[in-house]
Amino acid sequence: MNDLGPRLDRRGCSVGLAMDILGERWTILVLREAFYGVRRFDEMQKAIGCARNVLADRLATLVEHDILRRLPYREEGQRERFEYRLTEKGKELFPVIVALLQWGDRWLAKDGGPVEVLHRECGAEVHAELRCAHGHGGLGPRDTEPKRRPKKRAPALARAPSGRR
Amino acid sequence: MNDLGPRLDRRGCSVGLAMDILGERWTILVLREAFYGVRRFDEMQKAIGCARNVLADRLATLVEHDILRRLPYREEGQRERFEYRLTEKGKELFPVIVALLQWGDRWLAKDGGPVEVLHRECGAEVHAELRCAHGHGGLGPRDTEPKRRPKKRAPALARAPSGRR
Repeated sequence: MNDLGPRLDRRGCSVGLAMDILGERWTILVLREAFYGVRRFDEMQKAIGCARNVLADRLATLVEHDILRRLPYREEGQRERFEYRLTEKGKELFPVIVALLQWGDRWLAKDGGPVEVLHRECGAEVHAELRCAHGHGGLGPRDTEPKRRPKKRAPALARAPSGRR
Repeated sequence: MNDLGPRLDRRGCSVGLAMDILGERWTILVLREAFYGVRRFDEMQKAIGCARNVLADRLATLVEHDILRRLPYREEGQRERFEYRLTEKGKELFPVIVALLQWGDRWLAKDGGPVEVLHRECGAEVHAELRCAHGHGGLGPRDTEPKRRPKKRAPALARAPSGRR
């Protein structure tokens, strides 16, 4: 990016707001499991290996923030239980998870990491990439600059009703 | 993604390895500052608003993991101080930060968030997008599936030296 940074206003910064929810230990791993298709408490707990009360707490936070929703199910002869599914808001965290995965694969894992994410249709590996709205891809920090977002203008005055549709 | 998740092996998962380093409170905000071009302790501390000992601890962790490097500088009449710059490994975390920023902008912030990241060359807004190696873009969780990464084959036997090049 650049050196405009010191002059930017951080109040209400979206990275900070996101980390207030996602920054707790284990939360990102709960989301990883949700993206892997794991929905049930016991399976999540086994996959992640955290304490049950910690998992219960993280799930409650994610439900509270409408990132997961909690749905009842009942198996034959069992009491009602709940499973957890990603909401639309939750699904849009997928680029965060894939970006973490690919960075860890490249810089931390042995042999490129144990899991790869593939495009279902063509089988090619999926990666997170920075692109601009004009379609320029493969952007790195030096290709970009942070700017204060312009305030939205007040909405235009309502137009007078017209006879035509 | 899909329901292969319960059968995937999580040992050595790169998301977990990444969060072992990045999951501590404030660490992502330290990286945000680095990407905004903030290099000096006092400026970071003012921008983030965390305690000085916490910032010192997070910076030390990031230097230890070769995400930031610490370089000396000296201003006229002052003692030597240090600034912090992103390494190559650190710069490759940029998609994680932008993905968090755009999610927070969309789902948490008022008025779309205070900061936008622009492509320096054309001025269009930058976003994190999932694409496959064959160039299919705009992928969501349902377009993808996680798979166990195939083990790399053992290297082929060294070829017998040949007279030709």
